[in-house]
Amino acid sequence: MKIGIIGLGLIGGSMAIDLSAAGYQVIGISRRQAVCDRALERRMVQRASTDMEALAGADLVVICTPIQAIAATVEALLPHIHPDTVLTDVGSVKQPVVATVMQQWANYVGGHPMAGTAHQGIDAALPRLFAGRPYVLTPIAQTPPAAVDRVTQLVHTLGSDLYRCDPASHDQAVAWISHLPVVVSASLISACGSASPEVQGLAQAFASSGFRDTSRVGGGNPELGLMMAKHNHPNLLRSLHHYRQHLDQMIDAIDQEDWGAFESALVQTQRDRPKFVEPYGLG
Amino acid sequence: MKIGIIGLGLIGGSMAIDLSAAGYQVIGISRRQAVCDRALERRMVQRASTDMEALAGADLVVICTPIQAIAATVEALLPHIHPDTVLTDVGSVKQPVVATVMQQWANYVGGHPMAGTAHQGIDAALPRLFAGRPYVLTPIAQTPPAAVDRVTQLVHTLGSDLYRCDPASHDQAVAWISHLPVVVSASLISACGSASPEVQGLAQAFASSGFRDTSRVGGGNPELGLMMAKHNHPNLLRSLHHYRQHLDQMIDAIDQEDWGAFESALVQTQRDRPKFVEPYGLG
Repeated sequence: MKIGIIGLGLIGGSMAIDLSAAGYQVIGISRRQAVCDRALERRMVQRASTDMEALAGADLVVICTPIQAIAATVEALLPHIHPDTVLTDVGSVKQPVVATVMQQWANYVGGHPMAGTAHQGIDAALPRLFAGRPYVLTPIAQTPPAAVDRVTQLVHTLGSDLYRCDPASHDQAVAWISHLPVVVSASLISACGSASPEVQGLAQAFASSGFRDTSRVGGGNPELGLMMAKHNHPNLLRSLHHYRQHLDQMIDAIDQEDWGAFESALVQTQRDRPKFVEPYGLG
Repeated sequence: MKIGIIGLGLIGGSMAIDLSAAGYQVIGISRRQAVCDRALERRMVQRASTDMEALAGADLVVICTPIQAIAATVEALLPHIHPDTVLTDVGSVKQPVVATVMQQWANYVGGHPMAGTAHQGIDAALPRLFAGRPYVLTPIAQTPPAAVDRVTQLVHTLGSDLYRCDPASHDQAVAWISHLPVVVSASLISACGSASPEVQGLAQAFASSGFRDTSRVGGGNPELGLMMAKHNHPNLLRSLHHYRQHLDQMIDAIDQEDWGAFESALVQTQRDRPKFVEPYGLG
């Protein structure tokens, strides 16, 4: 199988490493010649080019560009591929991407490998980044089964745990566990700016692992936060409205000194958290 | 200097280890004989007793009981100590504790060593738990300077970074960085229960380090969360109201698709977070 990878950053580069190691013929595409040179130097790919023409004859093309560039990338790619070529992407929101790309190229399966590090770019690429991590495919009724099979083979080669669901369910799930935490956490950092300068100074000196962990995703890359909110905003908004209701219940319990209600809520959250963090032994 | 430690759990036990190692005569008090035996076995203390009488002649007594037991502990201790004995405590909220204990015993300085682990009890006690961590003293106008000096010596022996502030400022600062994150984080776990069963299943499978970190303190020991809310509730409530305002601003920006405002907020939180997490290189 001849596999094209468009975008050789952390995700595309890491994928190229594993696919090359598994014996596939991998062709990397980047807008920048320096990135193509680096990919060849690191032997991540068998061929690298700034020109989509290099993908003629590819059986599978994985689009690893930022989410907002996917549609234009597909548009530029179409003149160069044959009708049997299967496309997939790695965008972290699926409903709008799937709706757009399905109109451009029916032989397509939306995908989302749920792995990453705090770093970006080709030099951050790592072997086995996706191994043991979820990889979600979001075929719809019109998706050709043969296309799903081909992308499934990719997922297995990467050693990922395969999940299949519809694009809407995917986007709702990531709104809860990936996008909502960013807003919750950013609001925490932002709110601390309301303290008096003296108290802020003490708070900064006293902050410990509890604050560090709760604030981590809210102090991350603003571009990623913006992208996820833009592309998944109806689901994120719905999760935020639920979050605010639950927060208000906690505030009311504290305000009314209803310690029984407050303790019950904390007993429940202690019981529920392991359902989210234990499947991968994250502790 | 002869030092008494009442309560030989993680905090009291760890303190005993360092003070014994520094050459002080350390007397440990626990309600349970088994804990006294264990403290002697681990050579954390020179003497251990279930009877406060053992503290006759102590120059300094550190009360390491849970916060709700401090007043009763002081009451039980008073018949056994001489007027020059200095008391201090390790409660994580200072205003109510200082107000109460100052009426019982004027030779007292409120304290809060900001260190811990996820474990509890004497077997969790560690050497150098407090080294390089903040240790806050909260003397008030009536506190005898000699008492402050004696507790300061304790703080230096533990290798902690000494901070001095009034009890109210301490409680406001910990409301922001220690108590508010618990409610913010617990509300996140609780809100995820609003998703449909199918989406919850996917969310649990997809949850990664972002959710793990943001939810950690909200899924912790309910007793600790309850204690902090009970004892610091006016400050916690004030912080929560500010938090909700900042959250609402983020929700409004997303609702109105005002991406400029949303991005500015995230750029600011990325800039502000290091002020809280970098002093101790927490990253």
